[in-house]
Amino acid sequence: MRTGLDCFPCFLRQALEAARMVTQNEGIQRKVLNSVFSILSNVSVHMTPVEIAHLVHLRVKSITGNLDPYKEVKKKQNELALRCEKTLSAQIAEMSNPLKAAMMFSAAGNAIDLAPGRPVPDIYKRYMEMISKGFAWDDYELFIKKLAHSKLLLYLGDNAGEIVWDKILIEELLENFNLDILYAVRGFPILNDVTMEDAHFVGLDKVVKVVSNGFDAPGILLDRCSEDFLKHYRNSDLILSKGQGNYESLSGENRPIFFLLNVKCPVIAEDIHCNVGELVLKAQLNHGLSHH
Amino acid sequence: MRTGLDCFPCFLRQALEAARMVTQNEGIQRKVLNSVFSILSNVSVHMTPVEIAHLVHLRVKSITGNLDPYKEVKKKQNELALRCEKTLSAQIAEMSNPLKAAMMFSAAGNAIDLAPGRPVPDIYKRYMEMISKGFAWDDYELFIKKLAHSKLLLYLGDNAGEIVWDKILIEELLENFNLDILYAVRGFPILNDVTMEDAHFVGLDKVVKVVSNGFDAPGILLDRCSEDFLKHYRNSDLILSKGQGNYESLSGENRPIFFLLNVKCPVIAEDIHCNVGELVLKAQLNHGLSHH
Repeated sequence: MRTGLDCFPCFLRQALEAARMVTQNEGIQRKVLNSVFSILSNVSVHMTPVEIAHLVHLRVKSITGNLDPYKEVKKKQNELALRCEKTLSAQIAEMSNPLKAAMMFSAAGNAIDLAPGRPVPDIYKRYMEMISKGFAWDDYELFIKKLAHSKLLLYLGDNAGEIVWDKILIEELLENFNLDILYAVRGFPILNDVTMEDAHFVGLDKVVKVVSNGFDAPGILLDRCSEDFLKHYRNSDLILSKGQGNYESLSGENRPIFFLLNVKCPVIAEDIHCNVGELVLKAQLNHGLSHH
Repeated sequence: MRTGLDCFPCFLRQALEAARMVTQNEGIQRKVLNSVFSILSNVSVHMTPVEIAHLVHLRVKSITGNLDPYKEVKKKQNELALRCEKTLSAQIAEMSNPLKAAMMFSAAGNAIDLAPGRPVPDIYKRYMEMISKGFAWDDYELFIKKLAHSKLLLYLGDNAGEIVWDKILIEELLENFNLDILYAVRGFPILNDVTMEDAHFVGLDKVVKVVSNGFDAPGILLDRCSEDFLKHYRNSDLILSKGQGNYESLSGENRPIFFLLNVKCPVIAEDIHCNVGELVLKAQLNHGLSHH
């Protein structure tokens, strides 16, 4: 997906957020912004948002001297999600279609702010509101059909916190299908995206094999990922891709991918033909995945 | 008020919006953004947001070759507000305190998007919801007390569309107080701010004397305004200042100003100690206006 001009203010906002995670010094924050101005003046809009975001956050890291600005935030998001895990998992088990419900929870994952101090009942309530609306783009039946004929599923993770809902979904998948699953994380810290450290922290490595994609973009830039990861990417029968970043970088690729996400920005909403705030499960149609 | 780093993404977003009002050509839009990057790299955060916005939009005008990008939008906002005028005015007259209600409507004015095609009953509903919450900062009693001792009120206008609610409020003021009122507009087009053309279009000039401030910033930059305007600014007994831009540029000035606005951004919310979305009527306390 190419970058929209609407992404530019957002890159700036994200860079400022990242800088503020590291330092209260406004001079350094301003230096970060000025440096982002110079990057954005020179990038091509034919690059994906993920490629540009990677450049921007590499610069944030280098100016602030902090390679993992979201470290503390991620830890808190994971801790809060773990506190909710049992209750959510029990609620999902009671629903009429637990697997579909688990997919929706996982998609809703990065829409709901797991800020410390936020009351847990309030978090449940927000989730239930989102789930009750269903998928705005719903390729669930097709996904189940493909799953039944798949031996190896590659699951592309997205954010900290929601990785706990990924775990619940993966447990549902393993219960219902005779399937091997690989869960892929980012190779190095970027924003609040999941790394190997998060997978270990929430115990996902005890449920499923976790692999690194070998790079630190907030999405999957295939020409930068490790050979190991690319082997998994090519050999898997099916790919479940979580979140906006993975969608931005893989939409249009010739692989059997299902994109599971909450639509959070107007640029992606337009690309998917959905509205901001909606949940989406969408098959990569140009691979010949069909509804029939 | 000095500029926050949070304002930077917003300047960019506004410049893109203005460019898109004029042209669908993405190359020109990108040229505008790049030019704004270079402005923002060099401005001091000790400037007010209004000063920076003025530089940004001067550049938008010069690159696009269009001196009034919001001309059509403003016309539509004024037309829609005029269609609502009689009903709103009648509703206000029926309320327990019509003057205070008219002030709240006027403050809510630039929060509610007067987009063409938006159903009129929906607009009324949004207004009534806002009004029902009252002022989050409420210096109404003090304002009334000061009004009773004032002969000349200078009313600083803000946006097209809401100028019609200003008209309703001014009619209420004239009915209740023995008062002369001057309504000030921007000297030249800037964003969707009111100019002499808008005042004529909505018939405000038939109710009150309208004056120009002589400059085209989206606020009041005193050192750039005309001598004529400054005379009114100095000679008036009381000043009613509408909207965020006027607040950004006049908060801290040594004049008896009451700021009437809807808080639309976190930078101003922090400055006023209110929340985004709230209505505010706030006295300029450093002039010695007191609640006692």
